[in-house]
This record gives sequence, structure tokens and C-alpha cells, in this order.
Amino acid sequence: MDEIIVNHVKEYVNLSDDDLKLFTSMLTEIKLAKRKLLLQPGTHVKHEYFVTKGCLKSYYLDAKGNRNIVQFSIENWWLGDFDAFYNNVPSKLYIEAIEDSTLLAINYDNLQILFKKAPVFERYYRLLVTGAFISQRKRILSSLVNNTRERYLEFCETYPSIENRVPNYHIANYLGVSPERLSRIRRELKN
Amino acid sequence: MDEIIVNHVKEYVNLSDDDLKLFTSMLTEIKLAKRKLLLQPGTHVKHEYFVTKGCLKSYYLDAKGNRNIVQFSIENWWLGDFDAFYNNVPSKLYIEAIEDSTLLAINYDNLQILFKKAPVFERYYRLLVTGAFISQRKRILSSLVNNTRERYLEFCETYPSIENRVPNYHIANYLGVSPERLSRIRRELKN
Repeated sequence: MDEIIVNHVKEYVNLSDDDLKLFTSMLTEIKLAKRKLLLQPGTHVKHEYFVTKGCLKSYYLDAKGNRNIVQFSIENWWLGDFDAFYNNVPSKLYIEAIEDSTLLAINYDNLQILFKKAPVFERYYRLLVTGAFISQRKRILSSLVNNTRERYLEFCETYPSIENRVPNYHIANYLGVSPERLSRIRRELKN
Repeated sequence: MDEIIVNHVKEYVNLSDDDLKLFTSMLTEIKLAKRKLLLQPGTHVKHEYFVTKGCLKSYYLDAKGNRNIVQFSIENWWLGDFDAFYNNVPSKLYIEAIEDSTLLAINYDNLQILFKKAPVFERYYRLLVTGAFISQRKRILSSLVNNTRERYLEFCETYPSIENRVPNYHIANYLGVSPERLSRIRRELKN
């Protein structure tokens, strides 16, 4: 199971076997059944998670209780509530499994030890977070500039393998449109 | 002028005089007069910028040509078009000075040399980008969950010294409300 995350790390940085061994010794495997929650608001978040198998959604409830999906996570993605994790504030995010999922968890204290003992992981996480920041900003920009069709195509590019794994109404929610509107766009694109 | 950025770096990491010297040797000072553009769409972006004096706004134009301010930057903030800078794609962002501003610029190639020769800067930038990612996500969450009054108070907290430096209609634009609505909220809060 470690092989997936080891390959992911190696895509970003060159590192010694000792560094890798330290890192993998800090990971704990978690199984999460479909529809189960990994996180919910008000939790003290001690872990970040890497997906080795499965698919999850991260969402907020708005003031009216409506769900707003802000992220899907599939194999090779890290996820968590970063604000809660790094700033030690109660979480605000729901994270729920869309499929039976397997995750690797690293806890906050171990991560700090890792940065100290194997600083190459500063680089790994810097590159990851920079990518996440850019994706998030691109999504903001896209919501301002692009029409739904363009945003759906972007979604397919960002999540290439996800389209057939996630229900239509989840993708519609993520894009901020009605399921009917999304179905229409999908039909148009097939013609 | 370097003192401001040196103090900023020292707030995040412990580092040697040699590391600091290498870093500051890579910075170039830029003066930008009020209303001048630092960046515009379609540019090949070679630099990231740190504000030592002044105030700037980053914005996109939407499909209808309306301006959407996504960030203000004041003293001690880094800014730039990260997607363009890191992924070598044409920029999409406008960055414009709201006040006469002084910036320190670092170019991409130098930054890579810095990471190699002084890896402590991997940590500095990791911490910065993590903070930026969290702020950006909080803003997305806030737009879903909070009313305008709460979002305005959050804005004042995020940008404590900016409220009197930026025209009312800019703040309204950032919050996505009309200037009249913002004025009303400000009056209510004063009573």
C-alpha cells in the first residue's frame, strides 16, 4: 500500500531510503466505507490524509443548510481541513467517502518531526501546496470568467478519471449548476 | 529596504547570515507609481514580488469585462500570478498599484538556485503558501456561509490597516456587493 505514496513522493523530490523509511513509518492506514464521514465540523483535526484507493468529497453547509462541494479527492491526492490542521482551530469541513476508500494518515506532530529530520519533505509539501493554491485560484477565476460548459470541460481535465465515479448531481453541485443543466451540457458535448 | 523582508523571513525560519545574504542579493527593488500596472494578462511572468511600501490590487476581468478584485496586497505581502510564474503559462491577472508602491522582485531562476543552496527557504515558502491556501479557502467558505456584514468584519481582520487606504468601491468589489450596500453596513457598525 505504501508503494503508491512512495511513487508520489518520488515524482516531486529525490530522497534517500532513510528519509522514505522515516516517512512511511509515520503513516497509518485507514479504511473508510462508502457514505462514512472522515471529518465533520467542530472536530480537532490531528491528521492529513493521502488517498491510495477510493473517492471522497469535501463540502461545507451554507447558511441555509445547502451542501457546497469544494473538492473531490481520488487516488494520489492529499486532503484534510488545512485551517484546522495547521492553525489548531475547530474544523468547518465535512469529508465523506463516495466509494469505499483507503487512506494513509499522518499526524501533525509526526509531520513536524519529519520536516526536522528529513527537510526534503519541506520541498515535497511546498510543491504540493503551491499546486493546490494555484488550482484553487484557477477555480475562482474560472467561476468568474467561464461559462458552465467551459467549467465542465475544465473539471474533466482536473479530475480525468472521476467523471464516471461521481454521481451527476455531485458534479453539478461542485460546478454550482442544476443537475438538469449539467445533463444538457453533457448531451451537447456527446453530439 | 531589505530590513523589512529580512524581518519577515526571520518570523518564519531560523537561518544563517550566509543564507540571508544569498537571498537579499537576489532581490531587485521596483518602484511603481499609483495606478500603474505591475502585471497584465498575456505576460510571461518571471518574478514574484514582496511589498515593502504601498498597496496594490490583483483582479480579473470577467466575461462581461467587469473587474473582480481577488486580493489586496500591502506591506509584508508577497504577490504575483502564481500559475503563470510556476507553470510558465501566460498570466491572466491584472496587478495595479493603488498607492505609490515599492516592491522587491525575485526571479524564477534565482528562486530555484536559492532552494538548492539555502533549503531553509523551502520551509519559508511552504509556510507562506500554506497560509495563502488557507486564506483563499476561508474566503470561499465565507462567501458561502456568511452574510455581507460578517464578511466585511472578516475583511477588516485580514487587512487590518487597509480599510482607510482603499476606496470604498474597491472593498465592495472584493466582497461582491454594491458600494451603497457596503456604506450602509459601515454606518450600522459605527452606531
